[in-house]
Amino acid sequence: MIEIKKNKKIRVGICGYGNLGRGVELAVLKAPDMVIPAIFTRREPSSITTISGAPVIPEIEAPWWVDKIDAMIMCGGSRKDLPVQVPKFARFFNVVDSFDTHDEIKNHWNAVNEQAIAGGKIAIISNGWDPGIDSLFRELSNAIDPDAEPGDGIYCFYGKGISQGHSDAIRQIEGVKDARQYTIPIPEALNAVKAEENPKLSKGQQHRRVCFVVAKKGADRKRIEQEIVTMKDYFEGYETTVYFISQKKLNEEHGSLYHRGDAIANITTGNGNKHQMELILKLSSNPEFTGAFLTAAARAAYRMNEEGQVGAKTIDDVPLGMLSHKTREERLERFI
Amino acid sequence: MIEIKKNKKIRVGICGYGNLGRGVELAVLKAPDMVIPAIFTRREPSSITTISGAPVIPEIEAPWWVDKIDAMIMCGGSRKDLPVQVPKFARFFNVVDSFDTHDEIKNHWNAVNEQAIAGGKIAIISNGWDPGIDSLFRELSNAIDPDAEPGDGIYCFYGKGISQGHSDAIRQIEGVKDARQYTIPIPEALNAVKAEENPKLSKGQQHRRVCFVVAKKGADRKRIEQEIVTMKDYFEGYETTVYFISQKKLNEEHGSLYHRGDAIANITTGNGNKHQMELILKLSSNPEFTGAFLTAAARAAYRMNEEGQVGAKTIDDVPLGMLSHKTREERLERFI
Repeated sequence: MIEIKKNKKIRVGICGYGNLGRGVELAVLKAPDMVIPAIFTRREPSSITTISGAPVIPEIEAPWWVDKIDAMIMCGGSRKDLPVQVPKFARFFNVVDSFDTHDEIKNHWNAVNEQAIAGGKIAIISNGWDPGIDSLFRELSNAIDPDAEPGDGIYCFYGKGISQGHSDAIRQIEGVKDARQYTIPIPEALNAVKAEENPKLSKGQQHRRVCFVVAKKGADRKRIEQEIVTMKDYFEGYETTVYFISQKKLNEEHGSLYHRGDAIANITTGNGNKHQMELILKLSSNPEFTGAFLTAAARAAYRMNEEGQVGAKTIDDVPLGMLSHKTREERLERFI
Repeated sequence: MIEIKKNKKIRVGICGYGNLGRGVELAVLKAPDMVIPAIFTRREPSSITTISGAPVIPEIEAPWWVDKIDAMIMCGGSRKDLPVQVPKFARFFNVVDSFDTHDEIKNHWNAVNEQAIAGGKIAIISNGWDPGIDSLFRELSNAIDPDAEPGDGIYCFYGKGISQGHSDAIRQIEGVKDARQYTIPIPEALNAVKAEENPKLSKGQQHRRVCFVVAKKGADRKRIEQEIVTMKDYFEGYETTVYFISQKKLNEEHGSLYHRGDAIANITTGNGNKHQMELILKLSSNPEFTGAFLTAAARAAYRMNEEGQVGAKTIDDVPLGMLSHKTREERLERFI
C-alpha cells in the first residue's frame, strides 16, 4: 500500500458546486493532506464565490488541468449529470462519484471503466451512505454467512428523512412549484427484521412515502396527486400520501437535510447460532456526509492509481486503509 | 481483482482444533468455494474426530503440506499460541489469524511480516469482531471526520458478555478451579457517548468486570479476590466484583458464548453538522462468528497472494470484495 507522503498534498478538483460540491469543499479544507487547485462548473464562473477561495473554471476547460489535479470529485446528480460527466472525466482524471441509482450501477460501471482504462486512470463510483457504507455492510454480512442475501437476511431501511431524488421527481410534474418527499420505514417490517424473522418484503411493505407539494396557482391537484402515486420506479407499489401546502410552510417545516438508515443483517453460523449486525446512521446533513465520504474516496483513488490500478472500481475494491490519512504505524497502534 | 475461478476450490487448512477451529470448520463447510485438505494439531491426532472428516495431522508436519494448502487459518489463542505459531507458518503458507491483544498488534505484525515476505506469502492478522469489524468502523469514521479519534468521538463498548481472555487469566491464579468473567459497559458512559457528549473516559469509566470463580477446596478466597482485582492490564483500574460459586452453578448459569458490542462514532462535517454512526453486534457464539470471519479472510488471503501481494496485512488492507465469494457482476447488481 502506498504510504502517504507527508510533504506532498493531494490536489483535489471539484466538479459541480451545489450542496454536495460545497460539502466536499468543506471536507477537503478539513483534510490535513489535500488542497483544491480549482472548482469546475457549468454556470457562469463569475457568479460563484467559493468558500476556500479556489478559482472557478468552466467545466468545458477541465481537460487542460490534467497535470494539476490528482483526483476529481464529481458532484452532479445521479439522474442527468453523472452518467454523462463521469465517463468523460474518467478519460483525463482519477474520479470519484456518488452515483446512487442502484439499478443502473452496472451500466454506469461499464461506461466509466472503458474510459478510465483508456486514460490509465481510476474511477471509484457510487460512494456515500447507500450505495457506499451500506454496500460494505451487505458484502461483509454475506461474506460471514453466504446464505444471507439482500432481502433475505440482509435489510436496509431508510428514513425518516427527505429523499432528494424523489423530491426532484415530483418537482418535474406539470403544475408543481416545489416539493419534499419523506421516505419512512414501515414499523412492522423493521420490527420483524429486528426479531430475526427474515420476512420476504416487497418495496412497498418496507417503506412508505409522504409528499409535501406546493402547487402552482390554478393547477389541477387531483391530477398531480395521481401522477405522483402512479410514477414508475419512484412511487408505484408504495403507500404514498400527498399533502398540498404553501411554499411558506414548506420552507419553514420541511427544510431539514436530516436522514437516517438502519442496515440489519441476521446471520447464522455453524450449528444454527444466530447473530445480528446492525448499522445505524443518523445524518444531520446527508449531502455533507456524502461529501466527506467522497473526499476520503478521492484520497484512495489517487493512491490506488499511484500503485498502478486503473479502471472502474466500487468501494468494495478499496482497502479501507486507503481512505485514511493515517500512516500504517498509526493505524496499527490506534485503529486496528 | 482476481475473480473467483468457479471450478477451482480454495484449499483451506485449519491449525488448532478447539472452539474456534471447529467454528472455522463449520464455516468452510458452508462456503461454496472451499475445501479442507487437513486439520493440524499439537494433540494426539488419533484422539480427534473432525466434523468434516478431514484428516488430522501433527502440527510439526505442516510444512510438507506447502503445495496442498492455499491458506491456513490459525486457530490458537492470542496469549501463547499465535505469537509463536503465526510467524512460523507465514514462512510456508498464506495465513490468517484472530490475534486480539491490541497493545501487541504492531509487534505481531512486524514478526509475521518478516517471515511472510521471506516466503512470498501473505498474512492477514487480527481478524474478527474487535480487532476486525470494529477496526474498519474506527478507520471509516476517522476517514469521514479526521478530527474523530478513538476515545474522542469514536468509542467501542463490549458486553454484556463473557471475555475468554479474562476468564483464562483468572483460571491461572493458584487455588482457582474454574472461572468466567463478564465485561459490562457502564450505562452512564454509553449514554453520554450516545448523547454525543464525547466524554474522556478511562478504561474503568467505560466498563466494569464481574467474575464468577470456583475456588479449589481450602483455597484462600481473600487472596484470590485480591489477586484478581489487582491484576495488571486485566483488572487494575476497573470496578471488579468477584463472586465465589460452585462448579455446578458455573456450568449451569455461566456457559453462554453470547457477546455484544456497540461501536459508536460521533462525527462532524462542514459547518458543525453532527452525525452518528452506530454498529451493534449481537453474537450468540463469539468463536463461531470469529471463525466465519476468519474463513472469509482466508479467501481474501489466497486471492491477494495470487495477485502478487506478500507480507503482513490487516483487514484495512483488504478490499472487502475480496472476502466475498460473489463475482463482480453479482456484487454490482445486488450488493453495491
